Amino acid sequence: MTPPEAKPMSAPLALGARIGVMGGGQLGRMLALAGADLGFDIHVWHETADSPAARVAAQEWVAPFDDAATAARFAQAVDAVTYEFENVPLDAAEAVLAAGGVLRPGAQALAVAQDRAAEKAFAQEVGAAPAPHVVVDAHTDWATAWATLGTDRAVLKTRRLGYDGKGQARVRSAAEAEAVFAELGGVGCVLEAFVDFVREVSVIIARGADGRLAPFAVCENTHQDGVLAETRAPAQCSEATARRAVEIAAAMAEALDYVGVLTVEFFETLAGEVLVNEIAPRVHNSGHWTREACRHSQFSQHMRAVAGWPLGDPARIADARMLNILGDPNAVWPQWRDRADAVVTLYGKRAPRPGRKTGHVVITAPLSDP
Amino acid sequence: MTPPEAKPMSAPLALGARIGVMGGGQLGRMLALAGADLGFDIHVWHETADSPAARVAAQEWVAPFDDAATAARFAQAVDAVTYEFENVPLDAAEAVLAAGGVLRPGAQALAVAQDRAAEKAFAQEVGAAPAPHVVVDAHTDWATAWATLGTDRAVLKTRRLGYDGKGQARVRSAAEAEAVFAELGGVGCVLEAFVDFVREVSVIIARGADGRLAPFAVCENTHQDGVLAETRAPAQCSEATARRAVEIAAAMAEALDYVGVLTVEFFETLAGEVLVNEIAPRVHNSGHWTREACRHSQFSQHMRAVAGWPLGDPARIADARMLNILGDPNAVWPQWRDRADAVVTLYGKRAPRPGRKTGHVVITAPLSDP
Repeated sequence: MTPPEAKPMSAPLALGARIGVMGGGQLGRMLALAGADLGFDIHVWHETADSPAARVAAQEWVAPFDDAATAARFAQAVDAVTYEFENVPLDAAEAVLAAGGVLRPGAQALAVAQDRAAEKAFAQEVGAAPAPHVVVDAHTDWATAWATLGTDRAVLKTRRLGYDGKGQARVRSAAEAEAVFAELGGVGCVLEAFVDFVREVSVIIARGADGRLAPFAVCENTHQDGVLAETRAPAQCSEATARRAVEIAAAMAEALDYVGVLTVEFFETLAGEVLVNEIAPRVHNSGHWTREACRHSQFSQHMRAVAGWPLGDPARIADARMLNILGDPNAVWPQWRDRADAVVTLYGKRAPRPGRKTGHVVITAPLSDP
Repeated sequence: MTPPEAKPMSAPLALGARIGVMGGGQLGRMLALAGADLGFDIHVWHETADSPAARVAAQEWVAPFDDAATAARFAQAVDAVTYEFENVPLDAAEAVLAAGGVLRPGAQALAVAQDRAAEKAFAQEVGAAPAPHVVVDAHTDWATAWATLGTDRAVLKTRRLGYDGKGQARVRSAAEAEAVFAELGGVGCVLEAFVDFVREVSVIIARGADGRLAPFAVCENTHQDGVLAETRAPAQCSEATARRAVEIAAAMAEALDYVGVLTVEFFETLAGEVLVNEIAPRVHNSGHWTREACRHSQFSQHMRAVAGWPLGDPARIADARMLNILGDPNAVWPQWRDRADAVVTLYGKRAPRPGRKTGHVVITAPLSDP
């Protein structure tokens, strides 16, 4: 069967074209807003109705993400499809492509990002170092695995579906690792040596359909209880670290023939090593500051790339600090609302659960490195 | 009859509240986008379906603006009502208020802005000078009117419903003025001495529900064929002119007990006078640069004011140049799309008519006055 209306990947979308976003959370919402500013009609597909993104979209789709028939219809209803999260089922991605749809970024990026083992192998393929780790499963000899790491502290992480510190636990011995593995359900995991890092930095990089790369300034992240708490741009790391991190992210984008915004998180160690922590084939929480502090935001760059348009200038026009708002924003927003120099973004989430991201604040300051 | 659920004007809207916007054009669209970023659900009321603003709104309303029953229902469905254009029928504004709705800015601002004669009288009331003019109608003695102006060139403008150079014409004699008056349908007009100005500047000023004022930097406008072509911020006028212009705009906002963003256009004459040209009780085309070059944009400030929230900091973080895109954007957008330092905003207009505003471009540069 030949796909209906195969669309050449290189033709830029026309003015007023339709872009479909899979995922209706805050990232989808900010993608939809950025897409609207470029004149596009945004379709948002989420598993439940009245999602934050759907409320700013021209068209709402509601269906489970593993519904391949909807994926095919969605692909045909829009001119390009993108996603706000890396756990889009590969079947859905393939259904989009089988229906002749344009999927940006592509299915390969999803495959790599959905599996921590594949992610680490991919980092090594492009010449980068992930944290020392062992891939573990029901057949693992835990004593040997532990010895291989040569550490007294490790983190056991499920290969799939972890986020914001979920699906992972710190362990201090082979026996503890084995016990936690059983607690996590005996699913495939990676056992990762605990990295005693100086700082975590991330690179948000856009790659256009024309292959051009546009990295944002390297930024620095602070986590609390496994969830991003604060990002500062620029990062206070050395120039060598920043250069190396951007180099790795660029190599990854090239290797995946990536189109869109890619995020790579790194650890900078005491020894000055730059280790790959995580890859997210999407816009990222640690890039929210780009909306206020860059000429083109990560969301705008992503939508331009998805549309096959040339990327904009990612230059920083201010220093920035981004703070997440977690849980019920009523608890904290008045303090930010009353602070004139804070730009508060709220995601419009209904009845947010404790600890979930519900908004963020960006505070800009004059460029420290004009 | 007592209005249902009279809402106290001073209570700030809750998180996730609903704000209704009358008017679905590009100003409504950018208001809706800014409102979404503050976590609000935006309802857009337009006379036709599928308006640019409705495509980014949580809820679309379609009805004629003079439908008082819809105005009452709209007021009850949302927590506050605002508008993107000054020609909202006063009856609709009154229906909103009669239904217990919150209308920001209020009906008085509409009444002043809908009538050029009232606008000029209001300017005089706050101690400002409009261009020399005479209010004319079917009973006017044209020779006397002309002599009063003491000029050899004048502009005849309809009192109501003029915009973008429509409803006005230049005239060079009493006889020509009388003829053009007849051509314009014999409706009430003002005959205004042609002002030989050095530059046109505008002041975009926000006033919060708490009465606080936050003016943006005075900016400078260039028109072509009666339509705004370009705005530069900051204006190249003298400090005295800028100070006087802001003073007048602030006095107007105070006098109207205004809540929201108010725009006042001025002429700076060769003699250094600052004459009031037009008042717009709304966000304005000449304030679009604030989205890229200020911490809080005119749209964000307006929505904060409408919500009864404290205003943000209007400080400029960059110099800016804004250029309008008129007519079919396909003719010009590739040149801007390909220019990395240009931020292109497209309004998503379907089949735009020649000469109509369909997008704009903002180019920022480092602050010239840090």
